[in-house]
Amino acid sequence: MEILFDEAPTFPRGFRCASRNCGLKIDGKDLALFASDTDAVAAAVFTRNQFPGAPVILGRETIKDGMLRAIVANSKVSNVATGAEGLANARRMAAAAAKEIGTTPGRILVSSTGVIGRQLPIEKIEAGLVGMSSDLQPDPLVGAAGIMTTDTHPKALSARVGDATITWVAKGSGMIEPNMATMLAYIFTDASVERPALDRMLRDAVHVSFNMLSVDTDTSTSDTCVILANGRAGRVDEQQFFDTLSAGCIRMTQTLARDGEGAEHLIRAHVSGAASEDEARRIAKSLVNSPLVKTMVHGADPNVGRLLMAVGKCFDCTIAPASTDASINGYPVVRGGSRVEFDDAIVRETLRREIVDLEVSVGAGTATATAFGCDLTKGYIDENAAYYSS
Amino acid sequence: MEILFDEAPTFPRGFRCASRNCGLKIDGKDLALFASDTDAVAAAVFTRNQFPGAPVILGRETIKDGMLRAIVANSKVSNVATGAEGLANARRMAAAAAKEIGTTPGRILVSSTGVIGRQLPIEKIEAGLVGMSSDLQPDPLVGAAGIMTTDTHPKALSARVGDATITWVAKGSGMIEPNMATMLAYIFTDASVERPALDRMLRDAVHVSFNMLSVDTDTSTSDTCVILANGRAGRVDEQQFFDTLSAGCIRMTQTLARDGEGAEHLIRAHVSGAASEDEARRIAKSLVNSPLVKTMVHGADPNVGRLLMAVGKCFDCTIAPASTDASINGYPVVRGGSRVEFDDAIVRETLRREIVDLEVSVGAGTATATAFGCDLTKGYIDENAAYYSS
Repeated sequence: MEILFDEAPTFPRGFRCASRNCGLKIDGKDLALFASDTDAVAAAVFTRNQFPGAPVILGRETIKDGMLRAIVANSKVSNVATGAEGLANARRMAAAAAKEIGTTPGRILVSSTGVIGRQLPIEKIEAGLVGMSSDLQPDPLVGAAGIMTTDTHPKALSARVGDATITWVAKGSGMIEPNMATMLAYIFTDASVERPALDRMLRDAVHVSFNMLSVDTDTSTSDTCVILANGRAGRVDEQQFFDTLSAGCIRMTQTLARDGEGAEHLIRAHVSGAASEDEARRIAKSLVNSPLVKTMVHGADPNVGRLLMAVGKCFDCTIAPASTDASINGYPVVRGGSRVEFDDAIVRETLRREIVDLEVSVGAGTATATAFGCDLTKGYIDENAAYYSS
Repeated sequence: MEILFDEAPTFPRGFRCASRNCGLKIDGKDLALFASDTDAVAAAVFTRNQFPGAPVILGRETIKDGMLRAIVANSKVSNVATGAEGLANARRMAAAAAKEIGTTPGRILVSSTGVIGRQLPIEKIEAGLVGMSSDLQPDPLVGAAGIMTTDTHPKALSARVGDATITWVAKGSGMIEPNMATMLAYIFTDASVERPALDRMLRDAVHVSFNMLSVDTDTSTSDTCVILANGRAGRVDEQQFFDTLSAGCIRMTQTLARDGEGAEHLIRAHVSGAASEDEARRIAKSLVNSPLVKTMVHGADPNVGRLLMAVGKCFDCTIAPASTDASINGYPVVRGGSRVEFDDAIVRETLRREIVDLEVSVGAGTATATAFGCDLTKGYIDENAAYYSS
């Protein structure tokens, strides 16, 4: 099934958003509100980091009801490592958003993204939310702009499923790895889906998309992916809905990887012939996480032995070295565990493409997986050597 | 016990070395020979990478006898991913060295370091070895110079144990992580130690030193650490020997970390209060491996929440967030899982030191561990984006 995504994303019926500068950043949007006209069935997954931010602690509590009306998010300060005061501030943020749109705090999912270890300037956020419901509008990119940190562009896309629409809004960039990769990904649909199915489909879609993304191996303390389904478009074919949901999550994952901090290439590692899906995923992750593979792509340097190094350091995976093959954008570079004679110029040329597909077959079974990453550049270091200070 | 290391390292009795340019590099030494006058008891540990180089495959076979006479090593080409031809070349290299010094190939340990996936120019090495025994001399730095790749200086040190000497020669720089970290570390002693004790002490020393080093999370396919004990100084106190062996391995580990590709700082992560030694090691490694911690040190940016992020992404370790404290060079920055109010200027200042000690206590038990790493700089990217091509 070919899934078409809208170049100019739109919201499903009944969803709108707004964003503002409330004074956290010197300029640029730093506060976003995403609202459904009516309560929506909701599911969410959060970071597995053991130091979750206050919004994640609160979010896990909020999502238990399986029903949301809105999402409020700020950038610049992540409200992580802020103790009891931080949790109280997250609750105040929910309360202020609930008051503004006329619901209860338990229907508001709160997100904060940005620097760790600073208290939220909650008064600025509370003041910023006043009157924000009158700014709500149907363009998802307006809300996407309000949650950016080091992203170079706002990220949103939409697709149709029968009579319904699914819309994705996300931010990414750094501190992004396994186990809920994207820092913030919000998905909205007017399809009518029951809570257990919505929760299961979200987890299955995240498994093959955001959880296979790694910009830098670091796992944020704020990662959140949430889906709201307000039912306005009625029921749709469930398989078609899931296929579209997964495809959109994978597409957004690639957008996040390509816009990783400093990134100039999207790297996709396709592993086949693994002994199990778990091993295929670990090997694929090892490839996109290897600094030496990442710099090989960055420099278009045909040092293809690094592919074997990155596979071989998965000590606990079954690998048949003598049956291991690798290619880059379809061009064979390793056969039976040894480098094949190849034309350096061709490999250099293919490594210069914006998207670099690394295909590795490890000869141990039939399982496959794909991971998504990016190259490692001086831009990453520029952004992260002075993030707190900037 | 205070262990003193010689600023000007010397060899134990009966060991000498030589190095030459045999034409693998345009200029600079690319071939090294380390020889004992008599057969020496020997033990070794090798990379756990599943695509070990031909010299590692051969070395595992050679070391079974527990006896070595010499080590021959080349830089520039690592003889990895080279198939049957690569293994045959490694055997030819052992045979050539054996012939030159008058022993059997089974007494020669072979190492190759450098680019992966190219066949060894074995004729150049064979020709280079001819007459090399007449160059043998007592300065370990001469041999250290012959095994350098991207190292900025040759690395050797020595210390006394009673009447005996222990001398370490190593190279490091990139593709360095767990499970035999340094690419090549050779240890020589004239102490008399029996094989089982030597093997056990080597493994125990490597466990707390080279295996706690990570420059970039990537595990080389060539890592080798070997010790030769020729017995010329007779027996020494075993505990004192082990303490000195460990201390020297740790010191060399720090030298390798500080000279990691592009590195400007040595980072030591000291973890305490862990539930087990294994968990303490994993958390300490997570700290030195985190790109965001590494860039924080590089930029002297007091973004200390990243320490919690790096600890918290050890999903399978027991961590008590509310009892987690952290300090940098003794200056407290996190208490009870929250950032403490601190003077940014003091933290910036301390992060500018050449050695940065990150101390983290996770409140879950009594186990401790220390890991060694370095900052992440643009120099790392420069070196690795064009390694093959240079």
